[in-house]
Amino acid sequence: MSDLPSTVEIHEEGPREGFQIEPGPISTVDKVKLIDALSKTGLKHIQACSFVNPRLVPGWADAEKVVESFDAHENVEYTGLYFNGNGLDRALAFKDKLTISGSISLTASEGFTKKNLNRTHAENMAAMERHVMSHLELGIPVNRIGVMAAFGCNYQGDISPETVIKTLEDGMQIAAQTGAEITLFSLADTMGWAAPHRIERVVGEVRNVWPDMTISLHLHDTRGLAIANAYSALKMGVRQFDSTVGGLGGCPFAGQPKAAGNICTEELVLLCEELGIATGVDLDQLIEVGRLAEDIVGHQLPGELIHAGSLDAFRRERLQ
Amino acid sequence: MSDLPSTVEIHEEGPREGFQIEPGPISTVDKVKLIDALSKTGLKHIQACSFVNPRLVPGWADAEKVVESFDAHENVEYTGLYFNGNGLDRALAFKDKLTISGSISLTASEGFTKKNLNRTHAENMAAMERHVMSHLELGIPVNRIGVMAAFGCNYQGDISPETVIKTLEDGMQIAAQTGAEITLFSLADTMGWAAPHRIERVVGEVRNVWPDMTISLHLHDTRGLAIANAYSALKMGVRQFDSTVGGLGGCPFAGQPKAAGNICTEELVLLCEELGIATGVDLDQLIEVGRLAEDIVGHQLPGELIHAGSLDAFRRERLQ
Repeated sequence: MSDLPSTVEIHEEGPREGFQIEPGPISTVDKVKLIDALSKTGLKHIQACSFVNPRLVPGWADAEKVVESFDAHENVEYTGLYFNGNGLDRALAFKDKLTISGSISLTASEGFTKKNLNRTHAENMAAMERHVMSHLELGIPVNRIGVMAAFGCNYQGDISPETVIKTLEDGMQIAAQTGAEITLFSLADTMGWAAPHRIERVVGEVRNVWPDMTISLHLHDTRGLAIANAYSALKMGVRQFDSTVGGLGGCPFAGQPKAAGNICTEELVLLCEELGIATGVDLDQLIEVGRLAEDIVGHQLPGELIHAGSLDAFRRERLQ
Repeated sequence: MSDLPSTVEIHEEGPREGFQIEPGPISTVDKVKLIDALSKTGLKHIQACSFVNPRLVPGWADAEKVVESFDAHENVEYTGLYFNGNGLDRALAFKDKLTISGSISLTASEGFTKKNLNRTHAENMAAMERHVMSHLELGIPVNRIGVMAAFGCNYQGDISPETVIKTLEDGMQIAAQTGAEITLFSLADTMGWAAPHRIERVVGEVRNVWPDMTISLHLHDTRGLAIANAYSALKMGVRQFDSTVGGLGGCPFAGQPKAAGNICTEELVLLCEELGIATGVDLDQLIEVGRLAEDIVGHQLPGELIHAGSLDAFRRERLQ
């Protein structure tokens, strides 16, 4: 266990992931309430909204109102998700409140790229090059390459580590052509295909090529293995993760309305803290936010700690 | 990963664990339907019922009717749970259909022993000695020591590996006094206190004392870490697990009605098969049984594969 990191950086995406998928409608007031509650838990990174086209993501048509209304805490970095110039413009209107930085977003599965974006991989690369240029011209840094479907894809099946590396090389080529300085690779298990040994292989092989790059994982719990995958990643020394309070979020493709969302922040925090890895998060306070999230969406969320409580609560309160 | 076993033995406890906790009532017909469906999945060990006092476990008042009615498959071992002589007598009435063998059942937490059995650990040891004798006098083997709360307890907090070893030594003392030949230690995370490093420590330290003993784990997913705990155990070479289809079961203590049950059989099978460990189980067929279980209990079960499907189904059917 010598590779376990001493600290991890958790990027909370519950508001963005959750409210884009919930049938709702969720009120602007409730969205703001959740963000404000998350801000008090010790989390340092909160993705607060989505600026994706409201026709595609109607749940975030009120992104502007939400960003105007939440109470920005010092020491917390708030971001908004966007994929194109229009989204960037909407985010830039809040550049005093949101941290804005660009990302080269690619997909390891050509099948998913076609299905999701109606583009070939080559067309997506050209679009990403323009996207990066539009950031750099405005002086906005682009330090991140994101790879969706990095472990497998419902439209293409298993994705090999070689394909992930090829996709990252394509991203690095865009970076070289545009002058973007990449410091982070974000690997996403978008459709829940990862298992622990695949995490080990992909992280290991990516590190062989880029030993100094920070690797972040975006794990979905679609098939119940997310926390085992996170454990495997922690043992590989990975120290940055996206997650969602209560396990908010859901399956981005049709026909699986009850499928689980992202890895649950509370469970990730519990795992880390039990392993002696500092998260900076007050787990009991976070569990209360999970309960708030469950109240807001009006149905049981997958996060187990909402219903069972933390271990420290037992250690502290019941065992005196 | 060199310690990964090549095969694992899964003991399905969904019928017993699930129907003892569901508010129900669940009809006898439905219980039999679930057992019959499980018998066709490739599972080789099914705990079909509970002979615990119906006043304590009203959900299993119909144990006899269920055992009479299910269709016993060749090559499948069916068992019933019991803790005392009356339960043993009820089980013995079905000795042609059920595999009957005894267990020395102890608890690593004196707090839980008091709460659960209203006995001290010493009183429980005396009771267990009588229990073992009553088996051996009837020619029924007792090969197993079970330790509940082996990783922690809501009434006592963290349980040290030393306490687990002390409890196993107590069990071995009963075995020595009675002549029982122990071949298996079953360690139960009864209240969801385990985390992967604790699994490693406890399994490692128990092995140091009893290198040749088979270790089986009974994991609960109360705080969402069960699958990470199973992965950790597999890496330690553990090759026997209890689990429940759909994650049936629940929290045995009051006030947490929505808390998760046991580790879900489908997810355990998925993890194993993805790691290259043979289970003998047809996962897609098992997922169908999970869906049946969800229909029977009438509410969403925690097992994710019920809602997302297996990976092999995608690999096979959608990717031709």
